[in-house]
Amino acid sequence: MSNRWIQPGDNVDITNERKKCTFDIEKMSAFIHGGEDKLQRRREILEYVKSNKSLGDPQPIEFMTRNERVENASRKIVEMTNNTDQIDGSDFFGEGMYYQALTMGRDLHAMSLHYVMFIPTLQGQTDDEQLDHWLSLAIARAIVGTYAQTELGHGTNLSKLETTAHYDPKTEEFVLNSPTITAAKWWPGALGKSSNYAVVVAQLYTQGECKGPHPFIVQLREMDTHKPLKGITLGDIGPKLGINGSDNGFLLFDHVRIPRRHMLMRYSKVLPDGTYIKPQHSKLGYGTMVFVRSIMIKDQASQLGAASTIAIRYASVRRQGEIIPNSGEVQILDYQTQQYRLFPQLARAFAFLFAAYEIRDLYMKVTEQLTHGNTELLPEIHALSSGLKSVVSWDTAQGIEQCRLACGGHGYSQASAFPEIYGYAVGGCTYEGENIVMLQQVARFLMKAAEEVKKGSANLAEICAYIGRKGEQHSRFTSVDSYRDEDIVSDLEYVARQQVFRAYEKLRKAQQQANSETAWNSCSVELCKTSRWHVRLYLVKNFLAKVSTAPSDLRAVLHDVARLYAFDIITSSSGNFYENGYMREDQMNEIREGVYKCLHRIRPNAVSLVDSWDYDDRELKSVLGRRDGNVYPALLEWAKQSPLNKTEVLPTFDKYLGPMMREAKSKL
Amino acid sequence: MSNRWIQPGDNVDITNERKKCTFDIEKMSAFIHGGEDKLQRRREILEYVKSNKSLGDPQPIEFMTRNERVENASRKIVEMTNNTDQIDGSDFFGEGMYYQALTMGRDLHAMSLHYVMFIPTLQGQTDDEQLDHWLSLAIARAIVGTYAQTELGHGTNLSKLETTAHYDPKTEEFVLNSPTITAAKWWPGALGKSSNYAVVVAQLYTQGECKGPHPFIVQLREMDTHKPLKGITLGDIGPKLGINGSDNGFLLFDHVRIPRRHMLMRYSKVLPDGTYIKPQHSKLGYGTMVFVRSIMIKDQASQLGAASTIAIRYASVRRQGEIIPNSGEVQILDYQTQQYRLFPQLARAFAFLFAAYEIRDLYMKVTEQLTHGNTELLPEIHALSSGLKSVVSWDTAQGIEQCRLACGGHGYSQASAFPEIYGYAVGGCTYEGENIVMLQQVARFLMKAAEEVKKGSANLAEICAYIGRKGEQHSRFTSVDSYRDEDIVSDLEYVARQQVFRAYEKLRKAQQQANSETAWNSCSVELCKTSRWHVRLYLVKNFLAKVSTAPSDLRAVLHDVARLYAFDIITSSSGNFYENGYMREDQMNEIREGVYKCLHRIRPNAVSLVDSWDYDDRELKSVLGRRDGNVYPALLEWAKQSPLNKTEVLPTFDKYLGPMMREAKSKL
Ligand SMILES: Cc1cc2nc3c(=O)[nH]c(=O)nc-3n(C[C@H](O)[C@H](O)[C@H](O)COP(=O)(O)OP(=O)(O)OC[C@H]3O[C@@H](n4cnc5c(N)ncnc54)[C@H](O)[C@@H]3O)c2cc1C
Ligand SMILES: Cc1cc2nc3c(=O)[nH]c(=O)nc-3n(C[C@H](O)[C@H](O)[C@H](O)COP(=O)(O)OP(=O)(O)OC[C@H]3O[C@@H](n4cnc5c(N)ncnc54)[C@H](O)[C@@H]3O)c2cc1C
Repeated sequence: MSNRWIQPGDNVDITNERKKCTFDIEKMSAFIHGGEDKLQRRREILEYVKSNKSLGDPQPIEFMTRNERVENASRKIVEMTNNTDQIDGSDFFGEGMYYQALTMGRDLHAMSLHYVMFIPTLQGQTDDEQLDHWLSLAIARAIVGTYAQTELGHGTNLSKLETTAHYDPKTEEFVLNSPTITAAKWWPGALGKSSNYAVVVAQLYTQGECKGPHPFIVQLREMDTHKPLKGITLGDIGPKLGINGSDNGFLLFDHVRIPRRHMLMRYSKVLPDGTYIKPQHSKLGYGTMVFVRSIMIKDQASQLGAASTIAIRYASVRRQGEIIPNSGEVQILDYQTQQYRLFPQLARAFAFLFAAYEIRDLYMKVTEQLTHGNTELLPEIHALSSGLKSVVSWDTAQGIEQCRLACGGHGYSQASAFPEIYGYAVGGCTYEGENIVMLQQVARFLMKAAEEVKKGSANLAEICAYIGRKGEQHSRFTSVDSYRDEDIVSDLEYVARQQVFRAYEKLRKAQQQANSETAWNSCSVELCKTSRWHVRLYLVKNFLAKVSTAPSDLRAVLHDVARLYAFDIITSSSGNFYENGYMREDQMNEIREGVYKCLHRIRPNAVSLVDSWDYDDRELKSVLGRRDGNVYPALLEWAKQSPLNKTEVLPTFDKYLGPMMREAKSKL
Repeated sequence: MSNRWIQPGDNVDITNERKKCTFDIEKMSAFIHGGEDKLQRRREILEYVKSNKSLGDPQPIEFMTRNERVENASRKIVEMTNNTDQIDGSDFFGEGMYYQALTMGRDLHAMSLHYVMFIPTLQGQTDDEQLDHWLSLAIARAIVGTYAQTELGHGTNLSKLETTAHYDPKTEEFVLNSPTITAAKWWPGALGKSSNYAVVVAQLYTQGECKGPHPFIVQLREMDTHKPLKGITLGDIGPKLGINGSDNGFLLFDHVRIPRRHMLMRYSKVLPDGTYIKPQHSKLGYGTMVFVRSIMIKDQASQLGAASTIAIRYASVRRQGEIIPNSGEVQILDYQTQQYRLFPQLARAFAFLFAAYEIRDLYMKVTEQLTHGNTELLPEIHALSSGLKSVVSWDTAQGIEQCRLACGGHGYSQASAFPEIYGYAVGGCTYEGENIVMLQQVARFLMKAAEEVKKGSANLAEICAYIGRKGEQHSRFTSVDSYRDEDIVSDLEYVARQQVFRAYEKLRKAQQQANSETAWNSCSVELCKTSRWHVRLYLVKNFLAKVSTAPSDLRAVLHDVARLYAFDIITSSSGNFYENGYMREDQMNEIREGVYKCLHRIRPNAVSLVDSWDYDDRELKSVLGRRDGNVYPALLEWAKQSPLNKTEVLPTFDKYLGPMMREAKSKL
């Protein structure tokens, strides 16, 4: 079988790995990326990005100061958006994300919020007239906008945002104000220096009453000079764990007046005289949220896939230590401990990617249903996507760190790209809904379902049907070989269901002793666990189902990966499976051996499995993860570019270390 | 009770927390830091550091470029070491570490390896004549040295280092050479730009034979000009996840000649004619290693303590969301999920600190025994300290991230200090022995012990005695209240012992099918688990024992913390305790409730518990963790210093964004 990943001059070890591959990599890539046509398009986009020198970095961004990073990112994003005709603009989930990843990397930029939040909010929240006006400006890039919701004092609890928008019927204007320091908008991407517009969420006051938080479109800076408008104070919030190419910003209003029609009026309205018109539907925003989540989940999967690619490739070229004395150093990929560190991360990346596809499809199904006024599936899918967001972002963060640590010392260098990947990805645990808060939202949904099951009134969609099923009393497991997908799912359903009702009973008992909210709080750790099991069950089920749709010659290897994912979950929480004698120790021991068997079976295909994710070096930006495996000379080349190496002797010698040593010498 | 942590102008919420404290904070601080005299000395050192302006930073280092950081750190370390008369130089574990933490923070510096590795290596590896010569130079700071062992291609497997030192009897010199690119020394702290000397580990060749890796002292740069000597190429290895004030470096030799007596000759020697004299004792280096580990463990505990302090203080001033509707926003510390995120981290910090003390004491005991030629305890303590290093560094890293995430968005900002704390601490998983490699070393020791027990020939010291004990068949647990310390220990011993013999049996079986090394590899995941249980058992036992020595009025609150630590371990691995019917589900459920009870009991003392770790703001360097709790205005002040805010309008507007918008406008 020809293998496009093998090229002359490559490291011999990595080439040998690739030669061991037992499946058709191109077919696998097509399966991973949703079809041969999609794969073809990826290659075209890559060629274009490589051919356009202006889309590249003059030097690795790790060597730039923050100001240089911000400037470099601005340059690239303008160039990138000058050339959007290179991609199918309607396919952000596929082509758009890939184009952006290749060009912008993981450092974000002046327009990240413009595309991800500003434009979608305009699309979702403006009335027709407003849409006409603002959307064309935004899409043409005549203005740069961001989404300013979070404040210094409030992120999660939006109902307590402090920025006010008082309606003044005399002038038909809103007066935006930040009455306290904690009212300062804080965090919005590209707010500090880049944007000249923002959707600002503020407490609407009209006719003496507070109507809660509403979105307004606000000009922040003069069009010509880019100076902040009168009454507006704004700036960058400083360096962060990651995304330092983005100027996340702060913003304070001192009685800034904006026209009435700058309130986004698709749902709520304020009439010229100040009369407030309530919104008709409330849950419609859910749809967009689900879509954004599907993108986030895909992005997380892609970061974990990248981390796995780097670490697995490096483990194939790194030789360290001998297994059998005097028989030569082995590739560290041969150590069972190394496989146990890395392969489950790759399995997770697959599980998360396939979940992202499924959520996107569900989103489209729901959107379709919504056009017929059917909102039935919405709560389940909203809950699922919130739960996935939490579980996926946290498992991804942990997985990236495992990959990094598995590269030993070199993983700690920014040359590995891990510090950047981690900083970028782990943000996902916090934004778009703080994870622990999200898990509790999911739990509310699950407790409602449990309540309905108890009352016999449940009408649960497929995703939750397990809660209402009776299920087995004992695991059907007899041997790893005969452990069918449906047995695995049945075992996970048992545990997920158990946990739902354990939490439900705990909550009911607590509610007999305290008010319902205090009771909730006293059960909240168990409730979060419940949500996690709900999500894990979904992830396993969806992964196994997806594998069963793969071309038959890919199924065996993918099945090993999916089983590793499931077995790892089961054995890491053995206690849950032992409860009520559901599973026996001998069964668990066999599944544990199953983990090691999966590692062993995946081993020869490991490099090819990550190759088939189709990351170009351009996207990985990692010296350790290079396709060609020629890691060591590249590390040296990379290091030579360090700004500290620009002069042979640093000023520290003349100023501090030299005098210190001379003085010491003179005294000896 | 007076409370030095309460001051006028403080945030009201944090003051109220402090008023709730049920114990004597000063007494607790003294207990934590090893006595009232030690606490007093901390305060004196703090005053001194605060009074010496040159020991401070002109601006937070987060806003500096890497070159500025390196320069700033060099300036400070010279000033700091100019004033070592301020501390008791013989007490590095206590005063030295504190003085350095206050002054240098977590970014390291030009002389970090000089003190931690260069000088101790000279002390340990030179013969008397060499010691006379080199030690005085190093201590006087007439030279700056580092320890260059790791190479681009080899870190863990020292036996395969590639740097060579060929002895030439004609000139009585060694010729140092880097025959390949992978032979480049890589990682040594302060090697790149600061040091002019290094202990270099190289393969010794004499009389045509390779004698393995040996240490040599090598001059790298000219004394007067600091230019690299002929044949020497060196530089900085580039930016890292953390410690960017340190110039970790690379080093290549092109046939560099050094005098014969630059080989460190305490143990091995090369005579003028090239005759090689073998070392007499081999395990003596262990002692120093144990000492370095005790320092590392204390340092890790201290980082986790700092992270807990920041997050718990912030959780007491952050109000977000309501538990009971319309009754006002609560401090996030009131959420059970928040407590569950944070308090176990604090408990770990205590457990690790107390373990560090114990290892230091054991080290002193062993050193004492060694002077009488008694090496009996050495292997056990070496194994224990290796295991502790691994478990502690990884749990610390995870704990710091939990603390960070628990601060929501603000945790992601470098203002929180978490990114720096994490970057600094997590390096400990890799250096001084890669964690997974260390755990396998511990496992070798445990398997030997198991073998001896099976053979009935075991003579196990206290730390391992549990392996040879019969132990209970069933947990003695009846209720949380009556669950005594010795019952807890007995339960953990059960699981640790089970795991030892499970791994032992698996290994024996595997050895029947393959050679012993392949068998080892196939069991290595289980072997690592075994080591972790060995260490966890030790940590719990030591923590409980330490608490029982606390002043009686501190014991109750410390006991809650210690039990939380133990209960958390037990409930997180319930499966291990269910095995063979050792524990029942109703028992486990009770212990799980015990976790929540501990959280609840710790809640009112949480802020005071972290206060009693006695971190000054100077040491924490965290806007979120400020003693006074006045977080929000300080965040704004911090952000204003961001280099991006130096100009109101960035060049990006004139160069890229402005033209883009103008062109778009013109086309609309
Ligand atoms: C990288 C990044 C980019 C961002 N970009 C934007 C942007 O473009 N625009 C914008 O408007 N915002 C943005 N944000 C802000 C982000 O949306 C908020 O940080 C996020 O919603 C979390 O809110 P918080 O910071 O208030 O956390 P908090 O709510 O303060 O969370 C702190 C802790 O309190 C706990 N907690 C809070 N409420 C509850 C509860 N009810 N029950 C139990 N526990 C609770 C949490 O679990 C957490 O442990 C960004 C943040 C980051 C990190
Ligand atoms: C911040 C930092 C500071 C440092 N400072 C110094 C310094 O001052 N001086 C100096 O000389 N060095 C220094 N080092 C280097 C450090 O000592 C090495 O990185 C460390 O020993 C790990 O070795 P390695 O990098 O070769 O990792 P590797 O051994 O390559 O590890 C990579 C992977 O292989 C696995 N592996 C390797 N061997 C085995 C085995 N036998 N069995 C199973 N798995 C195995 C590991 O578990 C790991 O997952 C520093 C490193 C860092 C990160």
